[in-house]
Amino acid sequence: MTLKLYFGPQSCALASHIALEEAGADYEAIAVNLAKGEQKTADYLKLNPKGRVPALVTERGVLTETPAILAFIAQSHPAARLAPLDDPFAFAELQAFTSYICSTVHPAYAHWRRGERWVDEASSIEDMKRRAPRNLAEQFALIETTMLRGPWVLGEAYSIADPYLFTLASWIEPLGVSLAQYPKVADLVARMRARPATRKVLPLHGM
Amino acid sequence: MTLKLYFGPQSCALASHIALEEAGADYEAIAVNLAKGEQKTADYLKLNPKGRVPALVTERGVLTETPAILAFIAQSHPAARLAPLDDPFAFAELQAFTSYICSTVHPAYAHWRRGERWVDEASSIEDMKRRAPRNLAEQFALIETTMLRGPWVLGEAYSIADPYLFTLASWIEPLGVSLAQYPKVADLVARMRARPATRKVLPLHGM
Repeated sequence: MTLKLYFGPQSCALASHIALEEAGADYEAIAVNLAKGEQKTADYLKLNPKGRVPALVTERGVLTETPAILAFIAQSHPAARLAPLDDPFAFAELQAFTSYICSTVHPAYAHWRRGERWVDEASSIEDMKRRAPRNLAEQFALIETTMLRGPWVLGEAYSIADPYLFTLASWIEPLGVSLAQYPKVADLVARMRARPATRKVLPLHGM
Repeated sequence: MTLKLYFGPQSCALASHIALEEAGADYEAIAVNLAKGEQKTADYLKLNPKGRVPALVTERGVLTETPAILAFIAQSHPAARLAPLDDPFAFAELQAFTSYICSTVHPAYAHWRRGERWVDEASSIEDMKRRAPRNLAEQFALIETTMLRGPWVLGEAYSIADPYLFTLASWIEPLGVSLAQYPKVADLVARMRARPATRKVLPLHGM
C-alpha cells in the first residue's frame, strides 16, 4: 500500500517528508492547511486524535510523532541506510538526538509561535516570545558543540537526524537567531539544500 | 561493563531505572541530587553536557533522553522482550507513545514545576502553574481514550512504555489531576506497583 503522509507546509512534518523521499518510499504527501485549522476537523481527528501533523497512514494503521515516523521509515526501508539499524548503541545515539529535538528544541520554538498552549494571559505569551530566542540559541549552541559530529549529525553517514535538524534550523532565523553562529549547523543546512530529495520536497512546503 | 544509570529520585529517570531492573541488566544506579544542583557541576556536565538526568554510561559512551535509553535497554536485552523488536510498525507505535510523553506530557508538567525555563516574569510562571493541570488532564484523557490499549500500553505485552507512563502518572495528583478519572491508567499504575522490578526500584526514589 502507498504510504500517505499528512503534512503541514513548513511544519516539523518536513523532516518525515524528506526522509520518505530519501528512502525511495512509495508514498503520497497530502497537505493539511494548519492556518485554516484543518487538523482539528472531525475527519482529520478520526485519523489523528491529537489534531497535529505529521501523521503517516500505513497498511497497519496510523503513526504519529516525528521520531517514531523517522525511525519507521529507516527500519522499513533498510536499503536506504538512513539509520544504524544493526547497532543498538548507535541507534540509541541517533534516537537521543531526535528525542532532544522533539522534547526540547521544538517546544522552545513553539513558545515563540504558539504560547497559548501553555498560558492564558497575553503578558505571559509576550514573555515567552521574548525568551524563546535565547533558549533556542543555547540549544543550537549545545547541538553545535556536543551533538553534531559533522558533516552530518552522526558523522560521515547521512541519517534521519539530518532532515529533522534541517527542519528546526529553517525556523530560527525569523526569531533573530542567526545560523552563522553555528558553522557546523549552517554547513549541514547547505548540504541538505543540495540533495535531490530535499530539492524535490521543499517547493511543496513553499520553501 | 556494568551500565551506570545517573538518576534523580522521582525524576523521569525512574522509567529507565525500572526498565533496567525488568531487563535483568547488569547495572548500577547512581543518585544525582537535583535539589542541590549536582546535575550542573563540572564533573556531571562532562558526562552529560545537557545537565539533566537520566544519563546511562555504557562501554561505548553516554546515552541521554528517556525514549533513547528505553529503546536501548530493550534492544540490548532482547530476551526480556520489552519491545516488539522485530516489527517496525509495532516498534513505531511504541515509539510514538514514548515520543508523546517526552515531547508533550513531560513539558506540560515542567510548566508547573520549572516555568523559569521558558519565561522571566513571576506573573508568567504563575499563569503556567494555573494552566498546567488543565493541559495534563487533557493529555491523560487522550492517553486513556486513544493510546493505552490495556492492561498495558501496547495491550497484553508489558513494554518500556509502561514504566514511562507510570512515572508521569506518579507526578500529576499533587497538581489536582486525579487518576480516578482515567481508569485504564489507574489500573496500569496499580499493576506496575505490584511488579517485583518496580517494588525494588521505588524505595531508591523515596516512593
